[in-house]
Amino acid sequence: MSEFDTATDVAADGSTTIHDGWDINGNANGGYLMALAARGMRLVAGRADPITVTGHYLAPGKPGPARIHTQVVKEGRRFTTVTGQLAAGDRTVLQLVGAFGDLASAPAGYEHIDVGPPDLPSFEECTPRSPQQGAVPLGLTRHLDIRIHPDQTGWVRGDRNGVPEMAGWFSFRDGRPIDTLALLLICDAFPPAVFHLDMPPGWVPTVEYTVHVRGVPAPGPVRCVFRSHFVQGGFLNEDGEVWDSTGRLVAQSRQLGLTPLTP
Amino acid sequence: MSEFDTATDVAADGSTTIHDGWDINGNANGGYLMALAARGMRLVAGRADPITVTGHYLAPGKPGPARIHTQVVKEGRRFTTVTGQLAAGDRTVLQLVGAFGDLASAPAGYEHIDVGPPDLPSFEECTPRSPQQGAVPLGLTRHLDIRIHPDQTGWVRGDRNGVPEMAGWFSFRDGRPIDTLALLLICDAFPPAVFHLDMPPGWVPTVEYTVHVRGVPAPGPVRCVFRSHFVQGGFLNEDGEVWDSTGRLVAQSRQLGLTPLTP
Repeated sequence: MSEFDTATDVAADGSTTIHDGWDINGNANGGYLMALAARGMRLVAGRADPITVTGHYLAPGKPGPARIHTQVVKEGRRFTTVTGQLAAGDRTVLQLVGAFGDLASAPAGYEHIDVGPPDLPSFEECTPRSPQQGAVPLGLTRHLDIRIHPDQTGWVRGDRNGVPEMAGWFSFRDGRPIDTLALLLICDAFPPAVFHLDMPPGWVPTVEYTVHVRGVPAPGPVRCVFRSHFVQGGFLNEDGEVWDSTGRLVAQSRQLGLTPLTP
Repeated sequence: MSEFDTATDVAADGSTTIHDGWDINGNANGGYLMALAARGMRLVAGRADPITVTGHYLAPGKPGPARIHTQVVKEGRRFTTVTGQLAAGDRTVLQLVGAFGDLASAPAGYEHIDVGPPDLPSFEECTPRSPQQGAVPLGLTRHLDIRIHPDQTGWVRGDRNGVPEMAGWFSFRDGRPIDTLALLLICDAFPPAVFHLDMPPGWVPTVEYTVHVRGVPAPGPVRCVFRSHFVQGGFLNEDGEVWDSTGRLVAQSRQLGLTPLTP
Protein backbone atom coordinates (compact mmCIF):
# COMPACT_ATOMS: atom_id res chain seq x y z
CA MET A 1 0.00 0.00 0.00
CA SER A 2 1.32 3.46 -0.87
CA GLU A 3 2.32 5.97 1.80
CA PHE A 4 -0.64 8.21 0.94
CA ASP A 5 -3.12 5.33 1.06
CA THR A 6 -1.74 4.23 4.42
CA ALA A 7 -1.82 7.76 5.80
CA THR A 8 -5.45 8.31 4.73
CA ASP A 9 -6.83 4.94 5.80
CA VAL A 10 -10.26 5.24 7.41
CA ALA A 11 -12.21 2.38 9.01
CA ALA A 12 -15.89 1.81 8.20
CA ASP A 13 -16.87 3.38 11.54
CA GLY A 14 -14.93 6.56 10.74
CA SER A 15 -12.01 5.91 13.07
CA THR A 16 -8.66 6.91 11.63
CA THR A 17 -5.22 8.22 12.48
CA ILE A 18 -3.61 11.55 11.70
CA HIS A 19 -0.26 10.16 10.65
CA ASP A 20 3.06 11.54 11.70
CA GLY A 21 5.26 12.84 8.89
CA TRP A 22 2.61 14.73 6.89
CA ASP A 23 3.23 17.89 8.83
CA ILE A 24 4.75 21.33 8.77
CA ASN A 25 6.55 21.89 12.05
CA GLY A 26 4.41 19.30 13.86
CA ASN A 27 1.01 20.38 12.49
CA ALA A 28 -0.53 18.13 9.85
CA ASN A 29 -0.75 19.82 6.45
CA GLY A 30 -4.24 21.15 5.63
CA GLY A 31 -4.42 19.36 2.29
CA TYR A 32 -3.51 16.05 3.92
CA LEU A 33 -6.23 16.59 6.55
CA MET A 34 -8.80 17.33 3.87
CA ALA A 35 -7.82 14.23 1.87
CA LEU A 36 -8.08 12.10 5.02
CA ALA A 37 -11.51 13.46 5.92
CA ALA A 38 -12.74 13.30 2.32
CA ARG A 39 -11.74 9.65 2.14
CA GLY A 40 -14.09 8.98 5.04
CA MET A 41 -16.79 11.05 3.35
CA ARG A 42 -16.25 9.26 0.03
CA LEU A 43 -16.74 5.97 1.83
CA VAL A 44 -20.27 6.88 2.91
CA ALA A 45 -21.03 8.61 -0.38
CA GLY A 46 -20.16 5.43 -2.28
CA ARG A 47 -19.06 7.44 -5.30
CA ALA A 48 -15.60 7.53 -6.86
CA ASP A 49 -14.63 11.19 -6.94
CA PRO A 50 -14.74 14.25 -4.73
CA ILE A 51 -16.26 16.90 -7.05
CA THR A 52 -16.11 19.86 -4.69
CA VAL A 53 -14.98 19.82 -1.07
CA THR A 54 -14.83 22.73 1.37
CA GLY A 55 -13.11 22.64 4.75
CA HIS A 56 -13.03 25.13 7.61
CA TYR A 57 -9.89 24.73 9.73
CA LEU A 58 -10.67 25.00 13.42
CA ALA A 59 -7.71 23.50 15.29
CA PRO A 60 -4.26 22.19 14.36
CA GLY A 61 -4.14 18.50 13.45
CA LYS A 62 -1.66 16.69 15.68
CA PRO A 63 -0.54 13.11 14.96
CA GLY A 64 -2.69 10.56 16.75
CA PRO A 65 -6.07 8.87 16.75
CA ALA A 66 -8.94 10.77 15.13
CA ARG A 67 -12.48 10.22 13.96
CA ILE A 68 -14.42 11.33 10.90
CA HIS A 69 -18.09 11.94 11.57
CA THR A 70 -20.17 12.00 8.39
CA GLN A 71 -23.75 12.62 7.40
CA VAL A 72 -25.25 12.10 3.96
CA VAL A 73 -27.37 15.17 3.25
CA LYS A 74 -28.63 14.19 -0.19
CA GLU A 75 -28.18 11.26 -2.49
CA GLY A 76 -28.95 12.72 -5.89
CA ARG A 77 -28.84 11.40 -9.41
CA ARG A 78 -25.37 12.82 -10.13
CA PHE A 79 -23.96 13.72 -6.73
CA THR A 80 -24.05 12.61 -3.13
CA THR A 81 -23.64 15.51 -0.72
CA VAL A 82 -22.01 14.74 2.60
CA THR A 83 -21.07 16.80 5.62
CA GLY A 84 -18.02 15.77 7.62
CA GLN A 85 -16.21 16.59 10.79
CA LEU A 86 -12.68 15.50 11.59
CA ALA A 87 -12.27 15.33 15.35
CA ALA A 88 -9.28 14.46 17.52
CA GLY A 89 -9.88 14.05 21.23
CA ASP A 90 -12.51 16.62 22.14
CA ARG A 91 -11.46 19.07 19.42
CA THR A 92 -12.98 19.57 16.01
CA VAL A 93 -10.06 19.96 13.63
CA LEU A 94 -11.94 20.39 10.39
CA GLN A 95 -15.58 20.99 9.40
CA LEU A 96 -16.40 19.93 5.83
CA VAL A 97 -19.05 19.73 3.17
CA GLY A 98 -18.51 17.90 -0.10
CA ALA A 99 -20.21 16.58 -3.20
CA PHE A 100 -19.09 13.23 -4.59
CA GLY A 101 -19.76 11.82 -8.02
CA ASP A 102 -18.25 9.91 -10.88
CA LEU A 103 -16.13 12.06 -13.17
CA ALA A 104 -15.37 9.24 -15.60
CA SER A 105 -19.06 9.10 -16.54
CA ALA A 106 -19.55 12.88 -16.73
CA PRO A 107 -20.72 14.13 -20.13
CA ALA A 108 -17.98 15.79 -22.20
CA GLY A 109 -20.31 18.56 -23.35
CA TYR A 110 -19.32 22.00 -24.52
CA GLU A 111 -15.72 23.04 -23.78
CA HIS A 112 -14.09 26.45 -23.51
CA ILE A 113 -10.74 26.87 -21.80
CA ASP A 114 -9.01 30.21 -22.30
CA VAL A 115 -6.13 29.77 -19.87
CA GLY A 116 -3.29 27.27 -20.32
CA PRO A 117 -1.08 25.34 -17.91
CA PRO A 118 1.85 27.19 -16.31
CA ASP A 119 4.97 27.42 -18.43
CA LEU A 120 7.50 25.31 -16.53
CA PRO A 121 10.95 23.85 -17.14
CA SER A 122 10.99 20.03 -17.01
CA PHE A 123 10.45 18.19 -13.73
CA GLU A 124 14.20 17.50 -13.51
CA GLU A 125 15.10 21.15 -14.18
CA CYS A 126 12.86 22.43 -11.37
CA THR A 127 14.12 22.80 -7.79
CA PRO A 128 13.10 20.20 -5.18
CA ARG A 129 11.20 21.68 -2.26
CA SER A 130 13.59 21.68 0.64
CA PRO A 131 12.81 19.54 3.72
CA GLN A 132 13.25 22.75 5.72
CA GLN A 133 11.56 26.11 5.25
CA GLY A 134 13.93 28.39 7.07
CA ALA A 135 13.98 26.98 10.61
CA VAL A 136 10.76 25.01 10.03
CA PRO A 137 11.00 21.25 9.34
CA LEU A 138 8.61 19.96 6.67
CA GLY A 139 7.71 16.33 7.37
CA LEU A 140 5.54 16.50 4.26
CA THR A 141 8.51 16.48 1.90
CA ARG A 142 9.38 12.93 3.00
CA HIS A 143 6.46 11.72 0.92
CA LEU A 144 5.98 14.40 -1.71
CA ASP A 145 8.35 15.27 -4.51
CA ILE A 146 7.60 18.93 -5.15
CA ARG A 147 9.68 20.79 -7.74
CA ILE A 148 9.49 24.58 -7.82
CA HIS A 149 10.07 26.76 -10.87
CA PRO A 150 13.76 27.82 -10.56
CA ASP A 151 12.80 31.49 -10.98
CA GLN A 152 10.55 31.20 -7.93
CA THR A 153 12.99 29.97 -5.30
CA GLY A 154 14.73 33.21 -4.30
CA TRP A 155 12.53 33.61 -1.21
CA VAL A 156 14.37 30.65 0.36
CA ARG A 157 17.44 32.90 0.74
CA GLY A 158 15.45 36.07 1.47
CA ASP A 159 15.55 37.27 -2.15
CA ARG A 160 11.85 37.92 -2.78
CA ASN A 161 10.68 38.67 -6.32
CA GLY A 162 7.50 40.51 -5.30
CA VAL A 163 5.22 38.37 -7.49
CA PRO A 164 2.87 36.19 -5.42
CA GLU A 165 2.97 33.17 -7.74
CA MET A 166 4.33 29.70 -6.95
CA ALA A 167 4.47 27.15 -9.76
CA GLY A 168 5.94 23.70 -10.07
CA TRP A 169 5.52 19.97 -10.39
CA PHE A 170 4.07 17.45 -7.99
CA SER A 171 4.48 13.69 -7.70
CA PHE A 172 4.51 11.16 -4.90
CA ARG A 173 7.99 9.93 -3.95
CA ASP A 174 6.80 6.32 -3.97
CA GLY A 175 5.31 6.70 -7.45
CA ARG A 176 1.68 6.38 -6.34
CA PRO A 177 -0.58 7.50 -9.18
CA ILE A 178 -2.32 10.85 -8.70
CA ASP A 179 -6.04 10.27 -8.35
CA THR A 180 -8.86 12.68 -7.60
CA LEU A 181 -8.45 12.22 -3.82
CA ALA A 182 -4.77 13.21 -4.03
CA LEU A 183 -5.75 16.51 -5.69
CA LEU A 184 -7.16 17.66 -2.33
CA LEU A 185 -3.68 17.25 -0.84
CA ILE A 186 -1.81 18.71 -3.80
CA CYS A 187 -3.64 22.06 -3.83
CA ASP A 188 -2.29 22.80 -0.34
CA ALA A 189 1.16 21.21 -0.59
CA PHE A 190 3.22 24.02 -2.13
CA PRO A 191 4.93 26.85 -0.27
CA PRO A 192 2.50 29.77 -0.01
CA ALA A 193 2.66 32.12 -3.00
CA VAL A 194 2.90 35.07 -0.59
CA PHE A 195 6.40 33.94 0.41
CA HIS A 196 7.54 35.96 -2.62
CA LEU A 197 6.28 39.14 -0.99
CA ASP A 198 8.14 41.38 1.39
CA MET A 199 6.13 40.36 4.43
CA PRO A 200 7.20 38.35 7.48
CA PRO A 201 7.48 34.73 6.31
CA GLY A 202 5.82 32.18 8.54
CA TRP A 203 2.84 29.98 8.97
CA VAL A 204 -0.19 31.01 6.85
CA PRO A 205 -3.19 29.69 8.78
CA THR A 206 -6.01 28.54 6.53
CA VAL A 207 -9.52 29.64 7.43
CA GLU A 208 -11.30 28.01 4.48
CA TYR A 209 -10.12 25.83 1.60
CA THR A 210 -12.17 24.61 -1.35
CA VAL A 211 -11.10 22.28 -4.14
CA HIS A 212 -13.06 21.71 -7.34
CA VAL A 213 -11.95 18.48 -8.97
CA ARG A 214 -12.35 19.03 -12.71
CA GLY A 215 -10.97 15.82 -14.17
CA VAL A 216 -9.32 12.47 -13.50
CA PRO A 217 -5.55 13.03 -13.89
CA ALA A 218 -3.71 11.14 -16.63
CA PRO A 219 -0.59 9.23 -15.45
CA GLY A 220 2.50 11.26 -14.57
CA PRO A 221 3.40 14.27 -12.45
CA VAL A 222 1.04 17.25 -12.45
CA ARG A 223 1.84 20.91 -13.07
CA CYS A 224 0.56 23.33 -10.45
CA VAL A 225 0.32 27.08 -10.03
CA PHE A 226 -0.83 29.13 -7.04
CA ARG A 227 -1.47 32.87 -6.96
CA SER A 228 -2.40 35.38 -4.24
CA HIS A 229 -3.64 38.55 -5.87
CA PHE A 230 -5.44 39.96 -2.86
CA VAL A 231 -3.61 40.41 0.42
CA GLN A 232 -5.49 42.94 2.55
CA GLY A 233 -7.00 43.47 5.99
CA GLY A 234 -5.18 40.52 7.55
CA PHE A 235 -6.56 38.06 4.97
CA LEU A 236 -5.24 36.61 1.73
CA ASN A 237 -6.58 34.41 -1.04
CA GLU A 238 -4.60 31.67 -2.73
CA ASP A 239 -6.00 30.35 -6.01
CA GLY A 240 -4.59 27.16 -7.46
CA GLU A 241 -4.74 25.22 -10.69
CA VAL A 242 -3.54 21.67 -11.30
CA TRP A 243 -2.93 20.41 -14.83
CA ASP A 244 -2.21 16.82 -15.81
CA SER A 245 0.43 15.47 -18.20
CA THR A 246 -1.92 15.83 -21.18
CA GLY A 247 -2.35 19.57 -20.46
CA ARG A 248 -5.86 19.19 -19.07
CA LEU A 249 -7.07 21.08 -16.00
CA VAL A 250 -7.84 18.57 -13.25
CA ALA A 251 -8.38 20.83 -10.23
CA GLN A 252 -9.02 24.40 -9.18
CA SER A 253 -8.60 25.49 -5.59
CA ARG A 254 -9.01 28.58 -3.50
CA GLN A 255 -8.23 29.24 0.09
CA LEU A 256 -8.81 32.11 2.46
CA GLY A 257 -5.84 32.46 4.77
CA LEU A 258 -4.57 34.79 7.41
CA THR A 259 -1.43 36.80 6.68
CA PRO A 260 1.60 34.98 8.08
CA LEU A 261 2.26 34.72 11.76
CA THR A 262 5.90 34.14 12.60
CA PRO A 263 6.48 30.45 13.33
CA MET B 1 -37.50 48.28 6.12
CA SER B 2 -35.74 47.75 2.80
CA GLU B 3 -36.89 45.11 0.32
CA PHE B 4 -33.75 43.04 0.92
CA ASP B 5 -34.11 43.20 4.71
CA THR B 6 -37.75 42.18 4.45
CA ALA B 7 -36.93 39.34 2.06
CA THR B 8 -34.18 37.96 4.32
CA ASP B 9 -36.02 38.30 7.62
CA VAL B 10 -35.42 35.28 9.90
CA ALA B 11 -37.08 34.69 13.27
CA ALA B 12 -35.07 33.71 16.36
CA ASP B 13 -36.23 30.10 15.95
CA GLY B 14 -34.96 29.96 12.36
CA SER B 15 -38.34 30.15 10.67
CA THR B 16 -38.38 32.31 7.57
CA THR B 17 -39.96 32.78 4.16
CA ILE B 18 -38.47 32.38 0.72
CA HIS B 19 -39.97 35.53 -0.74
CA ASP B 20 -41.59 35.75 -4.13
CA GLY B 21 -39.95 38.11 -6.61
CA TRP B 22 -36.30 37.18 -5.96
CA ASP B 23 -36.41 34.51 -8.60
CA ILE B 24 -35.35 33.52 -12.07
CA ASN B 25 -38.30 31.86 -13.76
CA GLY B 26 -39.90 30.90 -10.45
CA ASN B 27 -36.78 29.55 -8.73
CA ALA B 28 -35.25 31.77 -6.05
CA ASN B 29 -31.84 33.13 -7.02
CA GLY B 30 -28.94 31.25 -5.41
CA GLY B 31 -27.32 34.37 -4.02
CA TYR B 32 -30.60 35.44 -2.42
CA LEU B 33 -30.97 31.99 -0.83
CA MET B 34 -27.44 32.15 0.56
CA ALA B 35 -28.01 35.64 1.98
CA LEU B 36 -31.25 34.45 3.60
CA ALA B 37 -29.60 31.40 5.16
CA ALA B 38 -26.49 33.35 6.18
CA ARG B 39 -28.66 35.87 7.97
CA GLY B 40 -30.00 33.04 10.12
CA MET B 41 -26.46 31.77 10.68
CA ARG B 42 -25.22 35.26 11.55
CA LEU B 43 -27.96 35.50 14.16
CA VAL B 44 -26.62 32.51 16.07
CA ALA B 45 -22.98 33.50 15.46
CA GLY B 46 -23.64 36.89 17.03
CA ARG B 47 -20.94 38.49 14.89
CA ALA B 48 -21.41 41.24 12.32
CA ASP B 49 -19.97 39.87 9.09
CA PRO B 50 -19.97 36.71 7.04
CA ILE B 51 -16.24 36.16 6.34
CA THR B 52 -16.53 33.06 4.17
CA VAL B 53 -19.71 31.16 3.36
CA THR B 54 -20.08 28.04 1.21
CA GLY B 55 -23.38 26.62 0.00
CA HIS B 56 -24.24 23.39 -1.79
CA TYR B 57 -27.45 23.72 -3.81
CA LEU B 58 -29.62 20.64 -3.46
CA ALA B 59 -33.13 21.61 -4.57
CA PRO B 60 -34.74 24.67 -6.17
CA GLY B 61 -36.01 27.28 -3.71
CA LYS B 62 -39.70 27.96 -4.28
CA PRO B 63 -41.50 30.88 -2.62
CA GLY B 64 -43.07 29.89 0.68
CA PRO B 65 -42.31 29.07 4.29
CA ALA B 66 -38.85 27.74 5.08
CA ARG B 67 -36.61 27.07 8.04
CA ILE B 68 -32.93 27.61 8.71
CA HIS B 69 -31.35 24.99 10.95
CA THR B 70 -28.05 26.11 12.44
CA GLN B 71 -25.34 24.68 14.60
CA VAL B 72 -22.39 26.56 16.08
CA VAL B 73 -19.33 24.37 15.49
CA LYS B 74 -16.76 26.62 17.12
CA GLU B 75 -16.77 29.97 18.82
CA GLY B 76 -13.20 31.15 18.39
CA ARG B 77 -11.37 34.31 19.26
CA ARG B 78 -11.76 35.82 15.77
CA PHE B 79 -14.46 33.72 14.11
CA THR B 80 -17.56 31.78 14.91
CA THR B 81 -18.04 28.80 12.60
CA VAL B 82 -21.62 27.74 11.91
CA THR B 83 -23.21 25.05 9.78
CA GLY B 84 -26.60 25.76 8.26
CA GLN B 85 -29.34 24.06 6.37
CA LEU B 86 -32.13 25.85 4.56
CA ALA B 87 -35.14 23.55 4.36
CA ALA B 88 -38.54 24.00 2.78
CA GLY B 89 -41.17 21.37 3.48
CA ASP B 90 -39.31 18.06 3.59
CA ARG B 91 -36.60 19.20 1.17
CA THR B 92 -33.14 20.52 1.94
CA VAL B 93 -32.60 23.42 -0.43
CA LEU B 94 -29.15 24.49 0.66
CA GLN B 95 -26.42 23.03 2.90
CA LEU B 96 -23.98 25.60 4.24
CA VAL B 97 -20.92 26.23 6.32
CA GLY B 98 -19.72 29.70 7.23
CA ALA B 99 -17.34 31.68 9.39
CA PHE B 100 -18.54 34.95 10.90
CA GLY B 101 -16.44 37.72 12.39
CA ASP B 102 -16.05 41.45 12.63
CA LEU B 103 -14.31 42.98 9.63
CA ALA B 104 -14.33 46.50 11.03
CA SER B 105 -11.97 45.37 13.81
CA ALA B 106 -9.69 43.28 11.54
CA PRO B 107 -6.04 44.39 11.57
CA ALA B 108 -5.02 46.32 8.48
CA GLY B 109 -1.68 44.49 8.26
CA TYR B 110 0.43 43.98 5.17
CA GLU B 111 -1.27 44.76 1.84
CA HIS B 112 -0.53 43.61 -1.68
CA ILE B 113 -3.13 43.91 -4.42
CA ASP B 114 -1.91 43.37 -7.96
CA VAL B 115 -5.25 43.37 -9.79
CA GLY B 116 -7.51 46.41 -10.10
CA PRO B 117 -11.26 46.87 -10.40
CA PRO B 118 -12.88 46.28 -13.80
CA ASP B 119 -12.69 49.18 -16.22
CA LEU B 120 -16.32 50.25 -16.61
CA PRO B 121 -18.24 53.17 -18.11
CA SER B 122 -20.27 55.07 -15.51
CA PHE B 123 -23.33 53.52 -13.87
CA GLU B 124 -25.59 55.61 -16.14
CA GLU B 125 -23.71 54.61 -19.30
CA CYS B 126 -24.05 50.89 -18.57
CA THR B 127 -27.04 48.85 -19.75
CA PRO B 128 -29.77 47.91 -17.23
CA ARG B 129 -30.23 44.15 -16.90
CA SER B 130 -33.46 43.37 -18.66
CA PRO B 131 -36.38 41.98 -16.62
CA GLN B 132 -36.43 39.15 -19.18
CA GLN B 133 -33.62 36.86 -20.25
CA GLY B 134 -34.93 35.62 -23.56
CA ALA B 135 -38.21 33.96 -22.65
CA VAL B 136 -37.26 33.74 -18.97
CA PRO B 137 -38.77 36.30 -16.54
CA LEU B 138 -36.36 37.60 -13.90
CA GLY B 139 -38.24 38.56 -10.75
CA LEU B 140 -34.89 39.53 -9.28
CA THR B 141 -34.59 42.66 -11.41
CA ARG B 142 -37.58 44.19 -9.60
CA HIS B 143 -35.31 44.79 -6.62
CA LEU B 144 -31.83 44.97 -8.10
CA ASP B 145 -30.49 47.64 -10.41
CA ILE B 146 -27.82 45.79 -12.37
CA ARG B 147 -25.99 47.65 -15.15
CA ILE B 148 -23.95 45.63 -17.62
CA HIS B 149 -20.91 46.88 -19.51
CA PRO B 150 -22.34 47.99 -22.92
CA ASP B 151 -19.73 45.85 -24.77
CA GLN B 152 -21.02 42.78 -22.95
CA THR B 153 -24.68 42.84 -23.89
CA GLY B 154 -24.61 41.32 -27.39
CA TRP B 155 -25.61 37.87 -26.07
CA VAL B 156 -29.11 39.27 -25.38
CA ARG B 157 -29.70 39.38 -29.17
CA GLY B 158 -27.69 36.23 -29.92
CA ASP B 159 -24.53 38.15 -30.79
CA ARG B 160 -21.99 36.39 -28.57
CA ASN B 161 -18.50 37.86 -28.21
CA GLY B 162 -16.81 34.59 -27.19
CA VAL B 163 -15.23 36.06 -24.04
CA PRO B 164 -16.72 34.61 -20.84
CA GLU B 165 -16.60 37.81 -18.82
CA MET B 166 -19.56 39.78 -17.41
CA ALA B 167 -18.87 43.10 -15.75
CA GLY B 168 -21.08 45.84 -14.42
CA TRP B 169 -22.52 47.81 -11.56
CA PHE B 170 -24.87 46.75 -8.78
CA SER B 171 -27.14 48.71 -6.49
CA PHE B 172 -30.46 48.10 -4.77
CA ARG B 173 -33.41 49.85 -6.47
CA ASP B 174 -34.66 51.15 -3.13
CA GLY B 175 -31.25 52.61 -2.28
CA ARG B 176 -30.50 50.20 0.57
CA PRO B 177 -26.80 50.43 1.46
CA ILE B 178 -24.67 47.46 0.41
CA ASP B 179 -23.44 45.67 3.51
CA THR B 180 -21.45 42.45 3.88
CA LEU B 181 -24.61 40.30 3.86
CA ALA B 182 -25.69 41.77 0.51
CA LEU B 183 -22.37 40.71 -1.03
CA LEU B 184 -23.57 37.09 -0.82
CA LEU B 185 -26.48 38.03 -3.08
CA ILE B 186 -24.48 40.24 -5.41
CA CYS B 187 -21.92 37.59 -6.40
CA ASP B 188 -24.70 35.48 -7.91
CA ALA B 189 -26.94 38.23 -9.31
CA PHE B 190 -25.38 38.86 -12.73
CA PRO B 191 -26.13 36.95 -15.94
CA PRO B 192 -23.69 34.02 -16.18
CA ALA B 193 -20.41 34.95 -17.90
CA VAL B 194 -20.79 31.86 -20.14
CA PHE B 195 -23.75 33.52 -21.88
CA HIS B 196 -21.06 35.12 -24.07
CA LEU B 197 -20.05 31.69 -25.37
CA ASP B 198 -21.52 29.82 -28.27
CA MET B 199 -23.31 27.26 -26.11
CA PRO B 200 -27.02 26.75 -25.55
CA PRO B 201 -28.13 29.59 -23.23
CA GLY B 202 -30.25 28.57 -20.31
CA TRP B 203 -30.26 27.90 -16.64
CA VAL B 204 -26.79 27.29 -15.15
CA PRO B 205 -27.44 25.16 -12.06
CA THR B 206 -25.04 25.89 -9.21
CA VAL B 207 -23.49 22.93 -7.43
CA GLU B 208 -21.35 24.90 -5.01
CA TYR B 209 -20.89 28.62 -4.33
CA THR B 210 -18.41 30.26 -1.98
CA VAL B 211 -18.07 33.94 -1.14
CA HIS B 212 -15.12 35.46 0.70
CA VAL B 213 -16.07 38.83 2.13
CA ARG B 214 -12.92 40.93 2.08
CA GLY B 215 -14.12 44.29 3.29
CA VAL B 216 -17.07 46.40 4.40
CA PRO B 217 -18.27 48.28 1.29
CA ALA B 218 -18.10 52.07 1.28
CA PRO B 219 -21.39 53.83 0.32
CA GLY B 220 -22.45 53.72 -3.33
CA PRO B 221 -22.91 51.13 -6.08
CA VAL B 222 -20.29 48.39 -6.41
CA ARG B 223 -18.37 47.33 -9.51
CA CYS B 224 -18.47 43.60 -10.27
CA VAL B 225 -16.76 41.24 -12.69
CA PHE B 226 -17.36 37.54 -13.29
CA ARG B 227 -15.23 35.20 -15.41
CA SER B 228 -15.51 31.56 -16.47
CA HIS B 229 -12.13 30.39 -17.73
CA PHE B 230 -12.77 26.68 -17.43
CA VAL B 231 -15.78 25.12 -19.09
CA GLN B 232 -15.17 21.38 -19.47
CA GLY B 233 -16.67 17.98 -18.75
CA GLY B 234 -20.15 19.35 -18.08
CA PHE B 235 -18.88 21.72 -15.36
CA LEU B 236 -17.87 25.37 -15.30
CA ASN B 237 -16.35 27.75 -12.81
CA GLU B 238 -17.42 31.34 -12.33
CA ASP B 239 -15.05 33.57 -10.38
CA GLY B 240 -16.28 36.95 -9.20
CA GLU B 241 -14.84 40.12 -7.72
CA VAL B 242 -16.76 43.00 -6.15
CA TRP B 243 -15.11 46.39 -5.69
CA ASP B 244 -16.54 49.31 -3.74
CA SER B 245 -16.75 52.99 -4.70
CA THR B 246 -13.29 53.68 -3.23
CA GLY B 247 -11.73 51.01 -5.49
CA ARG B 248 -11.27 48.49 -2.69
CA LEU B 249 -11.99 44.77 -3.14
CA VAL B 250 -14.88 43.79 -0.88
CA ALA B 251 -15.66 40.26 -2.06
CA GLN B 252 -14.32 37.36 -4.07
CA SER B 253 -16.58 34.52 -5.16
CA ARG B 254 -16.34 31.25 -6.99
CA GLN B 255 -18.98 28.84 -8.06
CA LEU B 256 -18.98 25.42 -9.61
CA GLY B 257 -21.87 25.14 -12.04
CA LEU B 258 -23.23 22.74 -14.58
CA THR B 259 -23.15 23.76 -18.23
CA PRO B 260 -26.52 25.26 -19.18
CA LEU B 261 -29.61 23.18 -19.51
CA THR B 262 -32.21 24.73 -21.78
CA PRO B 263 -34.86 26.46 -19.65
